Amino acid sequence: MNVRFSERAQGLKASEIRELLKLTEMPEIISFAGGLPAPELFPVEEMEGIVQEVMREQGRAALQYSSTEGFKPLREIIAKERMAPAGVNVTCDDVAVTSGSQQGIEFSAKIFLNEGDIVVCESPSYLGAINAFKAYRPQFVEIPMDDHGMIIEELEKALKEHGNKVKMIYTIPDFQNPTGRTMPDDRRKRVAELAAEYEIPVIEDNPYGDLIYEGERHPSIKSFDKEGWVIYLGTFSKNFCPGLRLGWVCASEQILEKYVVVKQGVDLQCSTFDQRAAALFMQKYDLNKHIEKIKVVYKKRRNLMLDSMTKYFPEGVKFTHPIGGLFTWVELREDLDAKELMKDALAENVAYVPGGPFFPNGGHHNYFRLNYSCMSDEKIVEGVKRLGKVLDKHYK
Amino acid sequence: MNVRFSERAQGLKASEIRELLKLTEMPEIISFAGGLPAPELFPVEEMEGIVQEVMREQGRAALQYSSTEGFKPLREIIAKERMAPAGVNVTCDDVAVTSGSQQGIEFSAKIFLNEGDIVVCESPSYLGAINAFKAYRPQFVEIPMDDHGMIIEELEKALKEHGNKVKMIYTIPDFQNPTGRTMPDDRRKRVAELAAEYEIPVIEDNPYGDLIYEGERHPSIKSFDKEGWVIYLGTFSKNFCPGLRLGWVCASEQILEKYVVVKQGVDLQCSTFDQRAAALFMQKYDLNKHIEKIKVVYKKRRNLMLDSMTKYFPEGVKFTHPIGGLFTWVELREDLDAKELMKDALAENVAYVPGGPFFPNGGHHNYFRLNYSCMSDEKIVEGVKRLGKVLDKHYK
Repeated sequence: MNVRFSERAQGLKASEIRELLKLTEMPEIISFAGGLPAPELFPVEEMEGIVQEVMREQGRAALQYSSTEGFKPLREIIAKERMAPAGVNVTCDDVAVTSGSQQGIEFSAKIFLNEGDIVVCESPSYLGAINAFKAYRPQFVEIPMDDHGMIIEELEKALKEHGNKVKMIYTIPDFQNPTGRTMPDDRRKRVAELAAEYEIPVIEDNPYGDLIYEGERHPSIKSFDKEGWVIYLGTFSKNFCPGLRLGWVCASEQILEKYVVVKQGVDLQCSTFDQRAAALFMQKYDLNKHIEKIKVVYKKRRNLMLDSMTKYFPEGVKFTHPIGGLFTWVELREDLDAKELMKDALAENVAYVPGGPFFPNGGHHNYFRLNYSCMSDEKIVEGVKRLGKVLDKHYK
Repeated sequence: MNVRFSERAQGLKASEIRELLKLTEMPEIISFAGGLPAPELFPVEEMEGIVQEVMREQGRAALQYSSTEGFKPLREIIAKERMAPAGVNVTCDDVAVTSGSQQGIEFSAKIFLNEGDIVVCESPSYLGAINAFKAYRPQFVEIPMDDHGMIIEELEKALKEHGNKVKMIYTIPDFQNPTGRTMPDDRRKRVAELAAEYEIPVIEDNPYGDLIYEGERHPSIKSFDKEGWVIYLGTFSKNFCPGLRLGWVCASEQILEKYVVVKQGVDLQCSTFDQRAAALFMQKYDLNKHIEKIKVVYKKRRNLMLDSMTKYFPEGVKFTHPIGGLFTWVELREDLDAKELMKDALAENVAYVPGGPFFPNGGHHNYFRLNYSCMSDEKIVEGVKRLGKVLDKHYK
């Protein structure tokens, strides 16, 4: 059977990484590979009452089709309680609900990219975004990072060099995936200014912004956006419940309209029931209080992981010190290949994500990503110890 | 602000029809324009217990990320209880869960269409599919229909004429949207044979198959598929609850794999909670019994609508007599424009969907679609009466 797929689909394969990660699901393995929120922190008891109430009080409406833009009370909550603290003063009309921020990422590619167009992104960047973009067959220009995220001078150089072939800038300013790095406020401001200057949309992907362990939430890039070039993607996956698949896009009118029309064609709308349940939860409970609880636990886990890495990793192994979010990023000696080392790690019953695929143009095999959000204290220490043993062999 | 959208997005606009339909939401209007299931038939009481039980018994898992393919027990139920009655013997491994069948439609375009490729479809066809396909900028070849759906000789002629520029055949064999027409079994068999002969995938979109009011469910086109060229799209939107956004794709391994990889990039997965709730409902209750209840009501409404049309429409107005599904399709005299007539209809506080946009290549303005599933008996009679009054003016 010779099936003729579209050119874009020919290149789409279940990623090698994904196959590798399947191995990490065996119970004896301590896996730092995923990026799952800790399920023990989900507000299950509260949600039991919520889902029952939604079905009892709004059952027929909750099971029926509803608008593509999303449930209005939920959009109002997003505008008031999620966008305002990120420094963005908008109303529900500036917000549309998406299936997690992943859908917002994919729509961005659909809306802005012709084949061969340039996406500018951090080097490295979020694997799920790279893969979503790749279906539209763009070119990637990777902007080098320092400890404070994308280096602005390098961004400016790239925009100058590639001119109007650049169709969007994709960035995760807060506790970036995979590096855990955070962009300071002056850089955020500059990104917004450069977007306006070069007339290029910025996709600000911000799934982790709420989960800050040192200091206050940073103002979003969008908070510095005067003309409407910044498109903010948010999600309830990391601060509430990923299983409900609820995120949002906040953008200026002419841009948001495209996201809504695309959503209409793609899947009509998000789950009516889940939107109503999420909205009712946030009407009855304070999501920010819930987030405070998450932060206490994740901060402790982060500390434990970084302390254990300092203790058990051989000298010469570098890693980031994230002030929020879920990940730390490990840099090995240049001659080492984290994908190769994964075999030794699995033999020791510990796993991570090799860093190569986070670089859209390849190379950089001497990195890996560690997640600390969904693991017990004991497992964090024991897992890092095992990893240290694997690394020791190569750092004698 | 001069935003440079992708070529595909430039053409995407909120459809004229959609704007028109907003007018039909005023309470004084009797609208036959939508395609909503009747909310009074949703199993709200049962679902109240179900959602509570899911949260109580499986809360942490139900709120967490889960697999892209979908919740395995739900896929097992789909294989056993939905695909088998359509004549397709498969296991859960042949099924992936999608956000309604709309997502399966959109993925099909993404997977099979390069710009300029040909989609073969019924003339007219489902508006939501046409719009989803258009984002991939294909050409459409419309196959004329008779009372029994797509005319097979015309299909064969088109396949011969356009050769391997044809990349997929899109068809709704059961109570087609918008015409309500049904393809007899011999035609289904021929479509499957032609797909294999010409090596062209068939997208069999089957949202209404369960809702048959005369006789037994028809075997699906996929039931005649020997080599794996037929991709079956199913949904729980019309036989259960649209608000949960749950559908599925059933296809051969090498094709299904593409749908799963695409879904991974697009939105990771469907709502874990909704999938578990739907599965538990179907474990505890018999969905087919529920469907029997729906059929009794919809059949009565169909009869009432057709009888009223016979009674109140002027002679010369033709309409289809669907044996299932939600719609009947009205043909006016060729010089009449249903979109123009809509103004008169709205003045009489009654609405329909003008038929033009259901023809991807334009033309055919003398048609409109009527829905009878979500309306009280009184409103059906009164609405058809008002429509008759509007039509009478043009049929003196």
